[in-house]
Amino acid sequence: MTTIKLTGNVRLRNPIFIEGLPGVGNIGRVAVGYLVSELKAKLLATLYSEWFFPFVMLHDKYMIHLLKNEFYYVKATKKGQRDLILLIGDCQSLAPQGHYEVSEKILDFCQKMGVQEIITLGGLATGDLESPGKVVGAATSEAMMKKYSKFKIDFNAGDKVGYIVGAAGILPAIGNERGMDGLCLLGQTSGFPIVTDPKAAESVLNVMVGILGLKINMGKLEKKVEEMEDFMKKVESLQRKAIGEISKAAKPPTGEELRYIG
Amino acid sequence: MTTIKLTGNVRLRNPIFIEGLPGVGNIGRVAVGYLVSELKAKLLATLYSEWFFPFVMLHDKYMIHLLKNEFYYVKATKKGQRDLILLIGDCQSLAPQGHYEVSEKILDFCQKMGVQEIITLGGLATGDLESPGKVVGAATSEAMMKKYSKFKIDFNAGDKVGYIVGAAGILPAIGNERGMDGLCLLGQTSGFPIVTDPKAAESVLNVMVGILGLKINMGKLEKKVEEMEDFMKKVESLQRKAIGEISKAAKPPTGEELRYIG
Amino acid sequence: MTTIKLTGNVRLRNPIFIEGLPGVGNIGRVAVGYLVSELKAKLLATLYSEWFFPFVMLHDKYMIHLLKNEFYYVKATKKGQRDLILLIGDCQSLAPQGHYEVSEKILDFCQKMGVQEIITLGGLATGDLESPGKVVGAATSEAMMKKYSKFKIDFNAGDKVGYIVGAAGILPAIGNERGMDGLCLLGQTSGFPIVTDPKAAESVLNVMVGILGLKINMGKLEKKVEEMEDFMKKVESLQRKAIGEISKAAKPPTGEELRYIG
Amino acid sequence: MTTIKLTGNVRLRNPIFIEGLPGVGNIGRVAVGYLVSELKAKLLATLYSEWFFPFVMLHDKYMIHLLKNEFYYVKATKKGQRDLILLIGDCQSLAPQGHYEVSEKILDFCQKMGVQEIITLGGLATGDLESPGKVVGAATSEAMMKKYSKFKIDFNAGDKVGYIVGAAGILPAIGNERGMDGLCLLGQTSGFPIVTDPKAAESVLNVMVGILGLKINMGKLEKKVEEMEDFMKKVESLQRKAIGEISKAAKPPTGEELRYIG
Repeated sequence: MTTIKLTGNVRLRNPIFIEGLPGVGNIGRVAVGYLVSELKAKLLATLYSEWFFPFVMLHDKYMIHLLKNEFYYVKATKKGQRDLILLIGDCQSLAPQGHYEVSEKILDFCQKMGVQEIITLGGLATGDLESPGKVVGAATSEAMMKKYSKFKIDFNAGDKVGYIVGAAGILPAIGNERGMDGLCLLGQTSGFPIVTDPKAAESVLNVMVGILGLKINMGKLEKKVEEMEDFMKKVESLQRKAIGEISKAAKPPTGEELRYIG
Repeated sequence: MTTIKLTGNVRLRNPIFIEGLPGVGNIGRVAVGYLVSELKAKLLATLYSEWFFPFVMLHDKYMIHLLKNEFYYVKATKKGQRDLILLIGDCQSLAPQGHYEVSEKILDFCQKMGVQEIITLGGLATGDLESPGKVVGAATSEAMMKKYSKFKIDFNAGDKVGYIVGAAGILPAIGNERGMDGLCLLGQTSGFPIVTDPKAAESVLNVMVGILGLKINMGKLEKKVEEMEDFMKKVESLQRKAIGEISKAAKPPTGEELRYIG
Repeated sequence: MTTIKLTGNVRLRNPIFIEGLPGVGNIGRVAVGYLVSELKAKLLATLYSEWFFPFVMLHDKYMIHLLKNEFYYVKATKKGQRDLILLIGDCQSLAPQGHYEVSEKILDFCQKMGVQEIITLGGLATGDLESPGKVVGAATSEAMMKKYSKFKIDFNAGDKVGYIVGAAGILPAIGNERGMDGLCLLGQTSGFPIVTDPKAAESVLNVMVGILGLKINMGKLEKKVEEMEDFMKKVESLQRKAIGEISKAAKPPTGEELRYIG
Repeated sequence: MTTIKLTGNVRLRNPIFIEGLPGVGNIGRVAVGYLVSELKAKLLATLYSEWFFPFVMLHDKYMIHLLKNEFYYVKATKKGQRDLILLIGDCQSLAPQGHYEVSEKILDFCQKMGVQEIITLGGLATGDLESPGKVVGAATSEAMMKKYSKFKIDFNAGDKVGYIVGAAGILPAIGNERGMDGLCLLGQTSGFPIVTDPKAAESVLNVMVGILGLKINMGKLEKKVEEMEDFMKKVESLQRKAIGEISKAAKPPTGEELRYIG
């Protein structure tokens, strides 16, 4: 089961939903995390799921932290801006089917909040870095592509990538089946999953800020990344470590004479 | 969860259901895909499932494409013909249990549409190719076998094969438990899963066309296969690649001193 | 999901439930299969499950056979006998959790039929064969052990075995949590899972026949085993083969430059 | 499914819930097991789950034992004491998602019984044993940390551990999402999972006894551990062995010419 716990009772006007969960280069996570912090977004809801790894993290020395995703919101303050729902989190599903279930729950919640447009942010691991700072785009319709064609987005993703794994692809795709519009922005990066790429995150963030009609001071981004990076690396390496322990536990012990009945 | 989204509100008269999902040699996929195209079949419903791989494909350079199966329909235009429901798609379930769940949903939908007869098309990987063009058959009853004995079908499958994995076998078998009749047509092929075999697909298609009392121009088949092949290969190799990435991610990192608590 | 489809509408009086699904040495399968055949038991219900392997077998050359378990019944004809429900089948669950789900469904059905006593038959793989023909017993209570102490059952299983995997153990154990009594009879065998052991099956069958107050001609057992063995071996080796194919499919292809996005 | 079967109909006043399931060094299991025995706690409910391994253990030579967790209760007898619910058991979930499902069911039951405070006991595998007898703590809030700061608990777990796998971490964390307070006490141990560490268990038990305002004779702890150890080792090694058998069964047989159809 995947559970979403509401924090407050806020009404938003035609909000855009922006996803930034961990992934290649942690680009979405960094970009949306910085938006949350700079826009002083407020907590809207918390999602936790049996598809996340079954451990708790400890932070501030003794505090128990359940792995989760969090929805934040920002109300528009000027003309030309829109209400925002921002999704960040510690992790995505461990198992393939979990991605679908978690995404469906996220979309249920978005629909309840009146979302009609989804933007997901992620990374594109090219291996080589021929064009640093490039933001590649994918969309659920020609109209969406055209709507955002004035921003610095390279809509030739299909030529070089082919597929998007996890929330960044699944959310706009299933959202589209439910009648929502979707856009996916991918920052080009070298593609070592545990290395956070703040430069690529900044490129994606710049496009995002343009789309939203916001002004954001990028000066604190690098410092913010340093703060976040430690925790993000910890979750990822612990997740790998724990999966390793589990597989080790599955090996039969030697020097033991046991019998098998059926 | 597996979801079927209806596109229109069509009523069909005693339709035959014909399945052609990807499999060995992509024979069913090619044969039914060609029927859809030549008969100008119309979209009836779309199925997507958490048992499919959690990624989206990009096509036409920027367009997000959710992995799915699609039901098409064709209304009979002449005497001796019957209304058809044709199922094609990008993939089958990744996990063993998924095959059952997806098949049950397909059959729920078929029953709602009034289907009493199921024909599945697939490939038979013999390794050696002693008799090219041979179509091997299996059925859910002696009556079904006899009904189709006048077509060029070799009903000795049990001698040389033994089992059918996935939708081609599960659909008629569970359908039969629900009181429907089932036939399975398998084109003999060399058995390299990622190599599409248009010749074997044509053999199966010829039998199918005979059964349905249709006239189909086979001239465009080869060209159609070329068009489809690129996409089918992409799905399959990306699926393998992505599964590879997932297993790699499960390996514990080295040179790290972590502690395990319980 | 696991589904049980009723064949007829029979009422039984306080029936004993006897399980004989495939396992070590296929001892339960052979023993209960022989009871079904010799007692001319009638089909009561069919169980199929998404926890079974997603393929169909072909038998009689062209006939599609869904993997399933089958309940048969026999009505008592003499004083001292009791009504029987006999469970045989092609396979058990592929995945650990499946064993619980399938067992719960079997017990739901048993309770609906008024079963208060469960006897499971299986094999005990000792590796060495110091005492051929020995039948080892386990029970859910001291009362059950005493009730059957007059038969040739060695109730010291705990000394040499320690655990029973699958239906033979789970059914009486969960049955007991529901207030039913349970007995498990295990024939000692060498323990090569794919080798059917008709001698061990005969030992278990002899005890079973004594418990049920029946007279059975054992003369046809060997011939019956020959008939069954071919099919049982096929299911087992195909299951292994298919699992092998599935793992092979999960290996990433080489010589291909793909990108991974998230 | 995970099922909790109530044994009696007891009403408790604001009970503390204390968890001691098997884990690193079996510290929680030993400590809470000793509390159950010394306080003559009475059985309150039994939990079994499809996430536990699908085998039964045999004990007392012939008795079938289903893997389970058990809730016990103790009523306060003196001022300053509180009613207790104690959880011990044979095992935790085999699969990652199972931990969440089982924990949610445990918390459902706790809430029905009026629990507002959760304490989990476990082990901390440090590898080296610089400070034997140390008890490390984690909590769901600063208030909880302060409430228990007068006991010999080192609230610097985050510095040296980072994460807690399974029930010891998940229970207080999800409990906290439901409005309950949580504390986790971890005894430092060398970290060989199958080696029970009675010294570390005693340290944790001493803290626990202080918190509960109880007087417990520690004299029988060592003897109790010996009694329990045999069974705990058996469950663990059999679980490993059985998982090994299952993986072995998945290997395809050689020297066999089978065909694969789709």
